[in-house]
Amino acid sequence: MAKLRTPLCERLGIRLPIIQAPMAGGATTPALVTAASEAGALGSFGFAYTQPEAMQRDCATVRGQTGAPFNLNLFASTQPGAVAPQAQRTAIDAVAGYYAELGLPPPAPVKAPYAPDLEAQLTAVEDIRPPVFTFHLGDLPAPRVKHLQSLGIVVGGSATCIAEARRIEAAGVAFIIAQGAEAGGHRGTWLRNPYDAMTGTFALTRLLVRAVNVPVVAAGGIMDGAGIAAALALGAQAAQLGTAFVPCTESGLPPVYKQALLAVQEDETCITEKFSGKPARGIANRFMREMGARDAPQLVFPAQNALTGPLRAAAAKAGNADFIALWAGQAVPLARALPASELIAQLAAETEEALRRLQALLA
Amino acid sequence: MAKLRTPLCERLGIRLPIIQAPMAGGATTPALVTAASEAGALGSFGFAYTQPEAMQRDCATVRGQTGAPFNLNLFASTQPGAVAPQAQRTAIDAVAGYYAELGLPPPAPVKAPYAPDLEAQLTAVEDIRPPVFTFHLGDLPAPRVKHLQSLGIVVGGSATCIAEARRIEAAGVAFIIAQGAEAGGHRGTWLRNPYDAMTGTFALTRLLVRAVNVPVVAAGGIMDGAGIAAALALGAQAAQLGTAFVPCTESGLPPVYKQALLAVQEDETCITEKFSGKPARGIANRFMREMGARDAPQLVFPAQNALTGPLRAAAAKAGNADFIALWAGQAVPLARALPASELIAQLAAETEEALRRLQALLA
Repeated sequence: MAKLRTPLCERLGIRLPIIQAPMAGGATTPALVTAASEAGALGSFGFAYTQPEAMQRDCATVRGQTGAPFNLNLFASTQPGAVAPQAQRTAIDAVAGYYAELGLPPPAPVKAPYAPDLEAQLTAVEDIRPPVFTFHLGDLPAPRVKHLQSLGIVVGGSATCIAEARRIEAAGVAFIIAQGAEAGGHRGTWLRNPYDAMTGTFALTRLLVRAVNVPVVAAGGIMDGAGIAAALALGAQAAQLGTAFVPCTESGLPPVYKQALLAVQEDETCITEKFSGKPARGIANRFMREMGARDAPQLVFPAQNALTGPLRAAAAKAGNADFIALWAGQAVPLARALPASELIAQLAAETEEALRRLQALLA
Repeated sequence: MAKLRTPLCERLGIRLPIIQAPMAGGATTPALVTAASEAGALGSFGFAYTQPEAMQRDCATVRGQTGAPFNLNLFASTQPGAVAPQAQRTAIDAVAGYYAELGLPPPAPVKAPYAPDLEAQLTAVEDIRPPVFTFHLGDLPAPRVKHLQSLGIVVGGSATCIAEARRIEAAGVAFIIAQGAEAGGHRGTWLRNPYDAMTGTFALTRLLVRAVNVPVVAAGGIMDGAGIAAALALGAQAAQLGTAFVPCTESGLPPVYKQALLAVQEDETCITEKFSGKPARGIANRFMREMGARDAPQLVFPAQNALTGPLRAAAAKAGNADFIALWAGQAVPLARALPASELIAQLAAETEEALRRLQALLA
């Protein structure tokens, strides 16, 4: 049996070089995080839209079920203040027809704060003291990173370009997630125009491994053990998989989302800002196509996310995939529906198999 | 010393799982192809814009210098007929200022054929009988593929999505190049909208390896041996590197192009149609930025390529990188200036080193 442990695995206290990606929006239930961590990967909560009390509760649940390390992730982005009435009106008009189609009352103007307060969330992290904490969509000041690490939390951050990787390395992170263009969900870019930082996982991982001195984790388009072995070949010390975990039994996403994802036979993903106000990758559906085709007015992030919330919730409830944010990465056709523990066991076996296949080339 | 030979290497008769990518537009001189093939990789001519006589001459030159196999590549796309006068006028107006800036006479309307005739080029391939022939930007009918293979030519084609890979597999190709979104130069997409087929190398390689039964070659963002090892981990049987060979001593590209490429410190590439009429990836320069920002009128491919030809040639001569098509992939910051034989020796050593690093994980 292979070891597969990298120095980063030692640092994070995990048996396998696999991180179950934090995914905000319902996927990362305590059951999923527990199962992933128990199986030897790093289970992760996507807490971007989660209030401090729920963060506390979910982490306590995991701790009641496993002593294995887990990760907690936030969006390190700032929120806008009040949105101008005219912007509200045009953004509401752009989605009102969809609300009506689902039998919902007309959308109401959204009010700040549009998402949980980052400072309150960070205070919760300090209280919770998770073994690992990662941030996305921005950076944290060096003193904050230092303080978190002084509490025994291993801190990582995500980067979509060399400049971002160097910035968070300077802020003191212990590791960096290279979010390649293949990745599902929100593009983490904050220093460049996100559309200028669409570097693929293959190129980005290698660029970051050679640009920084801290361990790099590859993310984006990794769905199986061959992909994990490839990430390790590129010099990454772990692979972060999100889409692969969406269809897991324990994931909290609605059945219609899981079914849509499992049905995809080609890379049918694209980037949209229409759900949240920031670019994110998902399976192209009617909402993305129609809103994109007419470049419909939208609010800034995360106000747009608040505006489309009722629509997405109603669609999920109705089993209608047309209005759900079907976040998924470009290798989504390789998704499989398994309990997380079985998925991780298969990933480990496949990684070992890929490494043995490569070993034969050295003979 | 590692073997590094895959079944595809045996089929192609090469010692290393490395293909020096065919690059149309001057890079792939007989000297580069000879050096790459002599060093154990598969040297390749990018003959998309090359007339049959020059194809014959260049291949004879290589054969005079090495008995090693080499590859010859064409664009399998069709040409439009005459372009309407109004379209000519607006496209000419869009670039006229740049012509003037370089001291060139005003651009003249372009006349069909805008590029060499594909049928004549294919006839030349049948005469030349290169050991390997690959096509890009389209497919060839099955009888043509069969005929070429009956002449002892191993035929491969490139794909940017599962649908294209299945199509050319059905046409009988011996191997498929998975052109990931990272790749420099022209996007090969012909069955989908190219902007919907921007799947990263990591995801695409894995998708194609699992979708077809013929060997897959990974292309896009591969610049060093760790990348080659990663391609092999993904199940590819070779890696095709283009950008890595651009700065080689033997490459025929102008010094200003090589210098621009070696100076890049971040992924500063983007996709443009403004040079040729079809989307291609290169380092963003003034021409790409300005023409893109105002979405300047352009002719269809390859008429636009003919229109911008004098501008690109004059800029290259003047050492002006603003108006050259600086085709490059997203991992361009990893480029190094070496003779091809030294580059390939380093790539082989790095690949072996990466595989040994991975082997340690099995201990």
